[in-house]
Amino acid sequence: MAPTPDWVKQLTPSGPQGSELLATERAKSDITVERLSQLLYTQEVLDRKKKIINVLKSEKVFDKSQNYFSGRIDRFETALARAKKLRNLRVKHEWNLDEYRTASEAISEPGPYGLHDSMFLITIAEQGTPEQHAQFLVKAEEYKFIGCYAQTELGHGSNVRGLETTATWNLEDKTFIIHSPYLTASKWWIGSLGKTANYAVVMAQLFIAGKSYGPHPFVVQIRDLKTHEPLENVHVGDIGPKFGYNTMDNGFLLFNKVKVPHISMLARFSRVDLDTNQYVREGSPSLVYGTLTWVRSTIVMQAGSVLARGVTIATRYCAVRRQFQDRDAPASEPGENQVLNYTMVQIRLLPLLAATFALHFTGKSMMNLYSENQKKMNAGEAKDNGRGAGPEEIQSGSDILADLHATSCGLKAYSSTIAAEGLEVCRRACGGHGYSSFSGIGPWYADYLPTTTWEGDNYMLTQQVARYLLKSARSVLSSSAPSNDTTSILSTFLSRSEIGCAFDVLGSDSDLVDAFAWRTAFLTFEALKHRDEQKKAWNDLLVDFYRLSKAHSQYMVVRNFYEALQSGETRAQIDDSTLDVLTKLFRLFALNTLEQEGSEFYASGAVTVKQISLARTNTVMKLLEEIRPHAVRLVDSWAFDDWVLDSSLGRQDGKVYEDMFYRASELNPLNSITVDPYPDSEVLFKKDDRRRSKL
Amino acid sequence: MAPTPDWVKQLTPSGPQGSELLATERAKSDITVERLSQLLYTQEVLDRKKKIINVLKSEKVFDKSQNYFSGRIDRFETALARAKKLRNLRVKHEWNLDEYRTASEAISEPGPYGLHDSMFLITIAEQGTPEQHAQFLVKAEEYKFIGCYAQTELGHGSNVRGLETTATWNLEDKTFIIHSPYLTASKWWIGSLGKTANYAVVMAQLFIAGKSYGPHPFVVQIRDLKTHEPLENVHVGDIGPKFGYNTMDNGFLLFNKVKVPHISMLARFSRVDLDTNQYVREGSPSLVYGTLTWVRSTIVMQAGSVLARGVTIATRYCAVRRQFQDRDAPASEPGENQVLNYTMVQIRLLPLLAATFALHFTGKSMMNLYSENQKKMNAGEAKDNGRGAGPEEIQSGSDILADLHATSCGLKAYSSTIAAEGLEVCRRACGGHGYSSFSGIGPWYADYLPTTTWEGDNYMLTQQVARYLLKSARSVLSSSAPSNDTTSILSTFLSRSEIGCAFDVLGSDSDLVDAFAWRTAFLTFEALKHRDEQKKAWNDLLVDFYRLSKAHSQYMVVRNFYEALQSGETRAQIDDSTLDVLTKLFRLFALNTLEQEGSEFYASGAVTVKQISLARTNTVMKLLEEIRPHAVRLVDSWAFDDWVLDSSLGRQDGKVYEDMFYRASELNPLNSITVDPYPDSEVLFKKDDRRRSKL
Repeated sequence: MAPTPDWVKQLTPSGPQGSELLATERAKSDITVERLSQLLYTQEVLDRKKKIINVLKSEKVFDKSQNYFSGRIDRFETALARAKKLRNLRVKHEWNLDEYRTASEAISEPGPYGLHDSMFLITIAEQGTPEQHAQFLVKAEEYKFIGCYAQTELGHGSNVRGLETTATWNLEDKTFIIHSPYLTASKWWIGSLGKTANYAVVMAQLFIAGKSYGPHPFVVQIRDLKTHEPLENVHVGDIGPKFGYNTMDNGFLLFNKVKVPHISMLARFSRVDLDTNQYVREGSPSLVYGTLTWVRSTIVMQAGSVLARGVTIATRYCAVRRQFQDRDAPASEPGENQVLNYTMVQIRLLPLLAATFALHFTGKSMMNLYSENQKKMNAGEAKDNGRGAGPEEIQSGSDILADLHATSCGLKAYSSTIAAEGLEVCRRACGGHGYSSFSGIGPWYADYLPTTTWEGDNYMLTQQVARYLLKSARSVLSSSAPSNDTTSILSTFLSRSEIGCAFDVLGSDSDLVDAFAWRTAFLTFEALKHRDEQKKAWNDLLVDFYRLSKAHSQYMVVRNFYEALQSGETRAQIDDSTLDVLTKLFRLFALNTLEQEGSEFYASGAVTVKQISLARTNTVMKLLEEIRPHAVRLVDSWAFDDWVLDSSLGRQDGKVYEDMFYRASELNPLNSITVDPYPDSEVLFKKDDRRRSKL
Repeated sequence: MAPTPDWVKQLTPSGPQGSELLATERAKSDITVERLSQLLYTQEVLDRKKKIINVLKSEKVFDKSQNYFSGRIDRFETALARAKKLRNLRVKHEWNLDEYRTASEAISEPGPYGLHDSMFLITIAEQGTPEQHAQFLVKAEEYKFIGCYAQTELGHGSNVRGLETTATWNLEDKTFIIHSPYLTASKWWIGSLGKTANYAVVMAQLFIAGKSYGPHPFVVQIRDLKTHEPLENVHVGDIGPKFGYNTMDNGFLLFNKVKVPHISMLARFSRVDLDTNQYVREGSPSLVYGTLTWVRSTIVMQAGSVLARGVTIATRYCAVRRQFQDRDAPASEPGENQVLNYTMVQIRLLPLLAATFALHFTGKSMMNLYSENQKKMNAGEAKDNGRGAGPEEIQSGSDILADLHATSCGLKAYSSTIAAEGLEVCRRACGGHGYSSFSGIGPWYADYLPTTTWEGDNYMLTQQVARYLLKSARSVLSSSAPSNDTTSILSTFLSRSEIGCAFDVLGSDSDLVDAFAWRTAFLTFEALKHRDEQKKAWNDLLVDFYRLSKAHSQYMVVRNFYEALQSGETRAQIDDSTLDVLTKLFRLFALNTLEQEGSEFYASGAVTVKQISLARTNTVMKLLEEIRPHAVRLVDSWAFDDWVLDSSLGRQDGKVYEDMFYRASELNPLNSITVDPYPDSEVLFKKDDRRRSKL
């Protein structure tokens, strides 16, 4: 494109500049941003981020300026280059896993080593024997074997037992034959498989002497280590473009009776005995159950920060963008109003801002609970092995783990739904410019969306929560309940079934939390009545179960947010006025949720119609007004580096329009092209300076 | 990529084939698909579509197979080639505007002539004088001038009065000086401007002798007609990639004191007098007000068919996809369950299926009402000019137009929100595969999204509806109300304020409609109380106004759907069992909406809590079960050609997995590449056969 003329370079945005508007915003609030950031991340993590982002910024391959313009193949190529560089930086700087992950997060795109770094290494480490570690893990850690985790198939996702790939034990030569009997048996969606991996952990149905033993993991080489071409009888490739995640080579994989040796089956928990040809179970992989709980807890915590990126961008832009005069404004204030001043914008953004903190504290508390419980169980096990005094602790630990597992299912579904849908709300709150890739929200949203489907589909998961709540309710009714939070709210509800309740939801924060607990308990016993008394079909109750799971998760989030603000640890870290604003965010989140789910709260008897109506017309509107002046400082406390956000609209300095213009006119490769616009000409591009502008 | 091996070619999906499953679905229902299609489209339109799609399929440039794979520049290049070919086909086949639009719809992507074909031509035709038509319109219709409509700026979208581009009348040489005083004055988002247009209708603030007369349209040349390079002191280009709509060259445009002649200002309604240098208004552009109403009505009707594409894809795929056994299924039925059998899937998809028809009939009825009213007003005008007996008719016509205008604002917002959000629900209902571009939903959704922002932002528009409803309520209270549907429901509500109401929403369809009317009236008078009695600030009521507008629009959709099914015209066209299923869809749409908005209905006194609870647990669940067997035939009646849908999951023949696999392994250009996966190698692509595979 022709160079930008001087008269264009001299132009500035009209009116008060974005930088001035954001400075005014920041002056209006007394939130101590740094201390709040420390509460969210700890100073250590903040320092680590800063250090690592500086390393990345200095490497040309991580330059983001063409990310939004590039097509699929270019993006994948760049992502591969970045993955390699990142690995080499890790070695060079001796980064630990946390530092490596911090770097990946800052790059903010899924990379071709993604599944190697995580599921491939973890599965071999956790489910392999020492012999298998020696054979596979060492080379995998050296990136000589590059792997993926091949579970999902073209025809089966959620239903793992329905997988069609087979691994048949061959008595004669002591091998397994890996085979794809149908097209639907093709592995599908497997990250890092499409182009990058030369190895895969393949989940396949184990058959011994004609009998099925269910899905088991096999380590299988799929590409030549030198030529990187697929091995014989292996058909593998990339599954094509997706709504997002296009820097990742999700792949397909078919086997035509491929023989693999005995060592291929990961054998820590079950194996085929070489001498007897019998299936042997070596213990229960309950570890995996714990790992899943841990993974889901991290999704909950991440959901807060994923959403916070969108809220940061939208809040800053809505403070810079001005549109229309306030209808009731006095003539002495003739300027246009900041969009963030409109209550219709506030009601969309500020509850999401509250949700970022709510989800963060909830995820953090779950992860703490999980870690403490693991410690306790390990200690119990140690005692058990030593003096025989541990079993109760193990029992109590596994009751808590069961509770945590069910809770984590519901919260994973709820939090990732809030984050995904919330990002789209943020995008639209940016008006037309939200649709531009330069907003930074759309691409981020598109990459995040699969989280609502993987690690348990958000709708499917709600059945697990409901099953657990029904089981807990039955145990409470039969007085055989273990002691945990779930049974405690169910017992409380039951004990008051004759006298009902009265929650001062607008006057008391602890009553507000209790009202959420009450509604969960009410819906649980309703569902139990449908299933056990009325004998309704499971399928007819799925909608009820979905609502029940959502109600329970909302209770958990409200409770955890509340408790985080009550805790001495929190109070020691932040000052009173920040705590006051956070408490308002808690109320906004809880009351806005309560109002949206008004029918259920009312039906449960937890609140009156009058309270719901007052919550909406008075309390929530008042909270919006009170939180409004702190909005920019609150998003500042999430401490996203501009380089990480990569958003014109979300810039910390408010130079929104300058940045939009710069990207469009200076970075946009389409502007190196001149078209022939006339229908009677077959020429399309009469001038194409793309190559020249690259030089 | 290496050719697909024979052993892969021989594979088929497991279990009952998709084609068998869809055949079974179709055999289960007695819906007469062809007659229902005729009701939706008319046979004439169906024939036209078929004819035109056949023409398009025979032209290589319209081949869609690389659409999902191509990057932005390739997509734009192809879109330009298609736009040219389409124009030439139109000339060759002498297509009228309807036929041309049918072709554009079938291609299903925005094209670089999009704004030329619509806003550029229309604005000059409607707002130009005969002299201007001669100067601009003739060449525009010949595609020698290719134009766009440049209104929105970097800093101003919704607030047209805030536009910053100026057009200053120069007394001395009788010219206008078009100028962009700020960076934020840059035109932005302008379709067809980025690369294609050589002309633009520019909305600019008219200044005469230092006085501002507000925004006016100017026809301005921006690029050289031969070289297609920007003219001097014009800075123009493409604004960069977007969430969707990437086949369109949305552009930016800045002027540095560019002189244009007097004829440039479109002068049908206002002009600068050459002799006196005075601003002259030639009459009111009330026409434009009508046109906007018309445009919004078409958006409502389109929303039905836009959503129907997603519902078609998801419904067919959920009938083909099987996952898990039913938990309560007898051991004699060991197979996996069709996903469409799960109530949690039904509750997401079937109300949207109902919405497709509801929106279609609503849009159609609005367009009919608009046309009839225009005819009546024209007749009244004719009478007025002749015998002086017309004014009442004109008055009544303009009362109806005002009502229709307000209604169209609310319905545009409501229907495009349902369609956009509904498409995302459809995409997720397809599970993991919904995320693949081959689902066809994601790209379609991404291209549709701007509809929620343009032609009036969906949130902004609700204020216009509320303003109109408040005005109507005031006129009803002061007994000065014109007679139209809105004042009628308000009067009914008022007349019963002492005795309340009792609607048999579960037993009577007309009561169900009346309950929606009641809630609208209730919310209107509540809002009026807040504004007029309690003197609340306008800004504090925006959330209430949004809810009010939504409630009113829901009433309109429910009423129009109901009336369409009652009408003799409808009943003459379809048989009883199809009418019966449509009536169930009406109930599902209305009751599901009522249940979701339960708090408002209850607060208005229109229904009891018991009714809301029964609606959910009984009626809606029963309706899902009753509609389920007809789902596939119902979506078949929307009659989308497979070529138009371009979706693996939505194929009419159910060959879902074969098509997914074919596209991934045969069409995917990334599979022509072999990477070097090792971090210690700087080579990224060790083999790149893309060019070879193109030959």
